[in-house]
Amino acid sequence: MIITLTTDFGLTDPFVGQMKGVILGIAPEAKIVDITHAVEPFDILEGAHVLSSSCGYFPNGSVHVAVVDPGVGTSRRSIAALSNGHYFVGPDNGLLAPAIASRSGGKPVVVREIQNRSLLRDEISDTFHGRDVFAPLAAHLVRGASFESVGPRLGGYRLLEIPEPVPASPGRLIARVLRVDRFGNILTNLRTSDLAGESWCIRIGNGIQRLCRAYGDAPPGEAVAIEASLGLVEIAMDQASAADRLKVIKGLQFEVEVGVPVA
Amino acid sequence: MIITLTTDFGLTDPFVGQMKGVILGIAPEAKIVDITHAVEPFDILEGAHVLSSSCGYFPNGSVHVAVVDPGVGTSRRSIAALSNGHYFVGPDNGLLAPAIASRSGGKPVVVREIQNRSLLRDEISDTFHGRDVFAPLAAHLVRGASFESVGPRLGGYRLLEIPEPVPASPGRLIARVLRVDRFGNILTNLRTSDLAGESWCIRIGNGIQRLCRAYGDAPPGEAVAIEASLGLVEIAMDQASAADRLKVIKGLQFEVEVGVPVA
Amino acid sequence: MIITLTTDFGLTDPFVGQMKGVILGIAPEAKIVDITHAVEPFDILEGAHVLSSSCGYFPNGSVHVAVVDPGVGTSRRSIAALSNGHYFVGPDNGLLAPAIASRSGGKPVVVREIQNRSLLRDEISDTFHGRDVFAPLAAHLVRGASFESVGPRLGGYRLLEIPEPVPASPGRLIARVLRVDRFGNILTNLRTSDLAGESWCIRIGNGIQRLCRAYGDAPPGEAVAIEASLGLVEIAMDQASAADRLKVIKGLQFEVEVGVPVA
Repeated sequence: MIITLTTDFGLTDPFVGQMKGVILGIAPEAKIVDITHAVEPFDILEGAHVLSSSCGYFPNGSVHVAVVDPGVGTSRRSIAALSNGHYFVGPDNGLLAPAIASRSGGKPVVVREIQNRSLLRDEISDTFHGRDVFAPLAAHLVRGASFESVGPRLGGYRLLEIPEPVPASPGRLIARVLRVDRFGNILTNLRTSDLAGESWCIRIGNGIQRLCRAYGDAPPGEAVAIEASLGLVEIAMDQASAADRLKVIKGLQFEVEVGVPVA
Repeated sequence: MIITLTTDFGLTDPFVGQMKGVILGIAPEAKIVDITHAVEPFDILEGAHVLSSSCGYFPNGSVHVAVVDPGVGTSRRSIAALSNGHYFVGPDNGLLAPAIASRSGGKPVVVREIQNRSLLRDEISDTFHGRDVFAPLAAHLVRGASFESVGPRLGGYRLLEIPEPVPASPGRLIARVLRVDRFGNILTNLRTSDLAGESWCIRIGNGIQRLCRAYGDAPPGEAVAIEASLGLVEIAMDQASAADRLKVIKGLQFEVEVGVPVA
Repeated sequence: MIITLTTDFGLTDPFVGQMKGVILGIAPEAKIVDITHAVEPFDILEGAHVLSSSCGYFPNGSVHVAVVDPGVGTSRRSIAALSNGHYFVGPDNGLLAPAIASRSGGKPVVVREIQNRSLLRDEISDTFHGRDVFAPLAAHLVRGASFESVGPRLGGYRLLEIPEPVPASPGRLIARVLRVDRFGNILTNLRTSDLAGESWCIRIGNGIQRLCRAYGDAPPGEAVAIEASLGLVEIAMDQASAADRLKVIKGLQFEVEVGVPVA
């Protein structure tokens, strides 16, 4: 069985290696796959985007461990969820929410609070639940521990907070770049619903963009706004880096006109 | 069975993790090994160098997937090659060519165009054949799919284009640094055949170098020109970084005198 | 069985992938786990710290390969140690020493010089013992080669040299920052024994710190000096980056007053 790891720990320090040691000590047969460990530290939204856009490529029965956890050591809950055959394990801070929802396919999701100490490491540090709580729990699930044994069932889980675009004046929004990937695709905090109408205009970096449904619909060398995971708008360019061409970096604010006819 | 991965995807984005999910969904028993994912984006030559200098350390039966693919989504072919017990899977753009040749040991190489859709993902994106074409094909080969089932046999495959040194004046070449590794070894676009004669002189960075056959032949602290993979000249230094000492970076041009007696 | 890898090879070059190819060619059943490959080149102390603080999270029977090896190709010995169920394989330059000691639990440690050529690669380069000596030896241990067959027993192994703080004037030491991790924890070359008394004061960056035994003992937002592996003092901050707050980077020197009453 597969355990995936998504964290903001980086690969310079030995933290990820320590998690793997704990997992393999409990479940030697586990197949561990790194999704990424380069989430920007404490950027829950980036972690949620990465996990929700990747977990669907893994087979049923996979256990997805994610740790982007600014609240470690506080009273935030530790949770495990079972969503249509996929397990998700991590802090209850919104990180897992889009991935849990993306897998459910309309079926009920069961969420439990991690409380069974016999499925965790004996000594639990205040600062590294990835190694002491989430890694051993995932390994015990792979070993066949029942999901019921994790802890009490919860009524729900915390949803991901995505900062909304800010209305600037009638028909104008100030939006923000959440992430730029290696290929220059630009993830924004614009909802696709923000662009539901026909007449809108995005002014970002040094470009003005219109919505197309797919790369192939765009004239070559022109950026397009497409729907990405989380229901957000991503700006991309066929065969080129939209971020390079438009001079866009993470955190950049940009303006959107909506409901206004554009020349 | 082993599947190796060599790409320019980096480890920040989840692309490599997604490829592994696809592979393990088809072939749970596959052993996946990263050769590197830090090839400079779209640098086919660097990818070819890395793959050809590494594939020989893996056992027979290994499936080597490489993806440095500026032409993804265009009409470039997708190929799989069987070379003396090693499989190579990737775009037909020269990336695989030196590795295929390095393994053949004089035996015939069979190359097939990847066309059997039942060995690929149902949905194939225009931009990510690593995940949708090459990963599932490699996994099916590990699972025991016959090599014949991949697709029709081709007469050959595209060779790697290596930019040649440029003649500057009689007996003088302008060459280029293709790559510098972590230990400061300098890969150049000089062919070893360019230095076949006895009398030549390389002026690179702040040093002047002579050819030796091996590290051990050089006086300590002096750079040597040795034969690297791809038939190219590499400049290295025993127990030290040649790049640091000579002040050399990737892309640097340098001058070579050939056929001229050197003092 | 598990083989862990700790090196300064980085993940850009294919060196780590080559080591894994060699291992899996000999021991296909080996589970290989990267602890880190981002040790600063030739920084033996950093490698020793990483290994000794991580090996305890792996189960008995694990084989830990570490390569930070400025002396490769010289007369430095290659060793393998068996310490209370854990194997350690690498150069005899102090890199393995704290990890070997940390595992022994008071039981005798057996150290052998790696000399049995039949457990190594046929061709051994002068510069890459990680691939040609340590990887194949570890794989043969996993395959069941007896520890006795490695080579002759040694009387001991080289200890790690840690640069000591320098006395500046009576009651004052000049200490140094050895390492800063992703969470901003600051590893210093101060021994915990240097701070054995009650009255001491660390002036580092823009802060003045007192000793606490654990994160929880410190007032929020205040740095604490805790005992790290290697018996060294680490300066950390609850829920925050001590390095960022105190403006501290690797290599920084700082002053410690000892045996002097502090207001």
